Amino acid sequence: MAKGKAKRGIPSKKDEFAAWYPFIVEASDLVDKRYPIKGMDVWRPYGWKTMRLIDSLTHREMERTDHEEVNFPLLIPENLLDKENALVARLKKARDEGVDPDDLRMDEEEGGFKKEVYWVKNAGENELDIPMFLRPTSETAMYTMFPLWIRSHADLPLKVYQMVNTFRYETKQTRSFIRVREIHFFEAHTAHADEACATRQIEQDMEMVDRIMHDLCLPIIKAKRPVWDTFPGAWYTIGIDAIMPDGRTLQVASCHHYRDQWAKAFDITYEDENAEQQYCHQTTYGMSERLLGAVVGVHGDDDGLIMPPAIAPIQVAIIPIMPDKDPAVGIAIAEVCRKLDEVGIRYKVDDRDLRPGTKYYDCEIKGIPLRLDIGPRDVEKGHAFSAKRTGGKQPMPLSDIVNEVQTALLEIADELRNRSAASAENIIQPLPEFKQVDGKWQMNGQVETDTIYEMPFDGTDADAEVIERATSLSFLGDSTTDYPEERNCIITGKPTSRRVLLSRSY
Amino acid sequence: MAKGKAKRGIPSKKDEFAAWYPFIVEASDLVDKRYPIKGMDVWRPYGWKTMRLIDSLTHREMERTDHEEVNFPLLIPENLLDKENALVARLKKARDEGVDPDDLRMDEEEGGFKKEVYWVKNAGENELDIPMFLRPTSETAMYTMFPLWIRSHADLPLKVYQMVNTFRYETKQTRSFIRVREIHFFEAHTAHADEACATRQIEQDMEMVDRIMHDLCLPIIKAKRPVWDTFPGAWYTIGIDAIMPDGRTLQVASCHHYRDQWAKAFDITYEDENAEQQYCHQTTYGMSERLLGAVVGVHGDDDGLIMPPAIAPIQVAIIPIMPDKDPAVGIAIAEVCRKLDEVGIRYKVDDRDLRPGTKYYDCEIKGIPLRLDIGPRDVEKGHAFSAKRTGGKQPMPLSDIVNEVQTALLEIADELRNRSAASAENIIQPLPEFKQVDGKWQMNGQVETDTIYEMPFDGTDADAEVIERATSLSFLGDSTTDYPEERNCIITGKPTSRRVLLSRSY
Repeated sequence: MAKGKAKRGIPSKKDEFAAWYPFIVEASDLVDKRYPIKGMDVWRPYGWKTMRLIDSLTHREMERTDHEEVNFPLLIPENLLDKENALVARLKKARDEGVDPDDLRMDEEEGGFKKEVYWVKNAGENELDIPMFLRPTSETAMYTMFPLWIRSHADLPLKVYQMVNTFRYETKQTRSFIRVREIHFFEAHTAHADEACATRQIEQDMEMVDRIMHDLCLPIIKAKRPVWDTFPGAWYTIGIDAIMPDGRTLQVASCHHYRDQWAKAFDITYEDENAEQQYCHQTTYGMSERLLGAVVGVHGDDDGLIMPPAIAPIQVAIIPIMPDKDPAVGIAIAEVCRKLDEVGIRYKVDDRDLRPGTKYYDCEIKGIPLRLDIGPRDVEKGHAFSAKRTGGKQPMPLSDIVNEVQTALLEIADELRNRSAASAENIIQPLPEFKQVDGKWQMNGQVETDTIYEMPFDGTDADAEVIERATSLSFLGDSTTDYPEERNCIITGKPTSRRVLLSRSY
Repeated sequence: MAKGKAKRGIPSKKDEFAAWYPFIVEASDLVDKRYPIKGMDVWRPYGWKTMRLIDSLTHREMERTDHEEVNFPLLIPENLLDKENALVARLKKARDEGVDPDDLRMDEEEGGFKKEVYWVKNAGENELDIPMFLRPTSETAMYTMFPLWIRSHADLPLKVYQMVNTFRYETKQTRSFIRVREIHFFEAHTAHADEACATRQIEQDMEMVDRIMHDLCLPIIKAKRPVWDTFPGAWYTIGIDAIMPDGRTLQVASCHHYRDQWAKAFDITYEDENAEQQYCHQTTYGMSERLLGAVVGVHGDDDGLIMPPAIAPIQVAIIPIMPDKDPAVGIAIAEVCRKLDEVGIRYKVDDRDLRPGTKYYDCEIKGIPLRLDIGPRDVEKGHAFSAKRTGGKQPMPLSDIVNEVQTALLEIADELRNRSAASAENIIQPLPEFKQVDGKWQMNGQVETDTIYEMPFDGTDADAEVIERATSLSFLGDSTTDYPEERNCIITGKPTSRRVLLSRSY
């Protein structure tokens, strides 16, 4: 721990990321981990405000694209899971046997979910007739209702979303925002007339992801997950991973194209224009508090968080310097506040009876993008003294303070995007070549633990397993951006433009 | 059911309120009750949007009064309840024995909560070491953390709140919004240096209640609950009841002054200015989705809901009349929309390919406060034809549409306030007198089932029980508005200004 220890007890982000992260989420007042259940943190006001601002980006995108917000019960009766289990078992069997899932009957076999949920089997002093579980996600709850809401093609597309608490009984090590047992979750569910309409929804989801990630200044990878990592019941899954500073990937969002697989399990049909019953095609789009985990991990530094201006609960901290010495200071600050209010900039005047140094420390650890110091000499000169959290100090004329602040916030966001994109670019490297020696595959070189690898790949699942074993990395899947020209598959040697990504993931 | 049945299958509100209410909450698309757990409805988009708008009033008040939003875990380990149970048992014993609770030791006896909570004792395939329950409210969870957050007088007052899902295992008949098993809940928790500071918080809470009820146009009664109906662990409870059209009261909010009783149980102390440890004094203020239940019940009529403009998801419905006949209609509507956007009025253009009659029906059942019809003849005359949901139709000049709409919305809110206040006034009546005949108490008259009664009362708990038995009504408690002059207690005959209220409550 001693090595690289930064000032004020904050571990070095570069040298000790695994210690820096848990330290910073508590030191910056995002959460309190002392609640007596592992993996269930208390959201403190600063953390919750940040999360709600991230949510507001999602609300904005959902409204823009005509999704409507609903709210489903947390509890799901166990017997509703039968349909889901049958679906998952049928698809798994079809995959294993290489047949069309429609040729298989529905087995009511147990799915994997049951091992990861919290159960409610008792209420008061009674044992419940039907056990219930806390939602890990809401397909089962929602698709029980969809058949009641969808009758004809006029009811399509149905586009709903909710922001709720979901639960997963994590047995792995927990980590604030990244791996928790109560998850602040967003899920959009849509139903469409056919596969093409559902595919267009996935395209719209990708656009929303881009817009949100732009605001969060996060570099991401979009990858079509390999079959074995596809969400149960999905035709395909696109995972959206943030690139963390330690070279690991963090899945922050995912979109699933269900085709009509869930619709067949839950009997979600509509009457088409020819009065015939058709199955709906469905998609889902999910994100969670992991977005905040990525913001913390990607942007922070050895002084604390750095909040992207779009989601900073306090975009500007105003520090009065010696306000008692000159009443002009208070007057100038009131005027700045009035102007910032007019344009809806989120600011806070830190008028606590503390030394400026202590206030600066708070600004830094909380990652407030911009600080304005205003003292008697500043007022005399007609300016505020500004300090960007990303670096750079300069006087700002009070007469043009709104423009100056807005420009500075845009610059800070750009700086965060540039920094994180540059760091992400270095992290992705081509995988060393493979060759067969005495019938065994060997890699020409070593894999680094802080690197994400890409490779041309067109092999089988067995070939993929060879690579995963040799590298101790996992397939992220096919990048949504192919190679511009064909290359030779790293195993088969066949020409392919498929760009496949490998990483250690959170 | 046939008697008083109104048009279009809606039961008569006046004659069949108990049938009207459940019909209307579904017919207006607030909730869907077909989810397969009793007392757990699905919030549909229209209902959830309304609830979020009610929440936004609460957020506004919380921000105005410097409360900060937090978010606590849903699950509470059973052993955290020991302190709470001991507190409740101690206070009950003190009350029963008429002694100071501080003179009693803490017994770790079981409280009543355990009979009303959902239990999580299993996760995945494991049995948990310590059972957990779904929060019915968050005192226990929060006061476990407060000692970690409060060190010195500089940390006080601590004022936090959250909006979360809470759970109660209801065995009584459930009713949307009014008696449900998963409750959309608001709870504010404060800690102060002394009793007087906490009392001022209760006063501030009362002011917030008034402001919110003004926006919801709800007539309410504030009553200091009798001792036997005080929240466990509270010094006193003020219940805020909406007056429902059937004469029953619906508790929509409550505020509790805890003095230092919970602080002693949870060891919530601070160091005062003389470096001495002191117990905090605490308060809570809670509200729930019952606010929406009251809005539905109080304002609706035989045509559907009537939404108070402050929380109407759609404040203005715009109906194009024969838009294909004259392109000027579309142009005029676009211009109206632009102007309404500028001032943030929530509107919706209903351009579905349906007859106006069907659209009017939707407007009415959903309680959209104002409807604007715009057709070729209207545009020619330079007006929109307006219809208020509370009655009254008139042309509105398009040139001054924003002012006209704003004025109409204010008038609608005033009309709702006047109607509900008038109805509430009639509902509260003096209780008939009591007299003793052969040692038995008799009432000079009958109580009506649709009436709330008030009386001067200064008797004992035993006297109260006499009244409750004779009337089959419950003590709501002491009105926060005393009689202006002393009257004779209905039982003891002693002069008193205490105005005590009796009702049948939901």
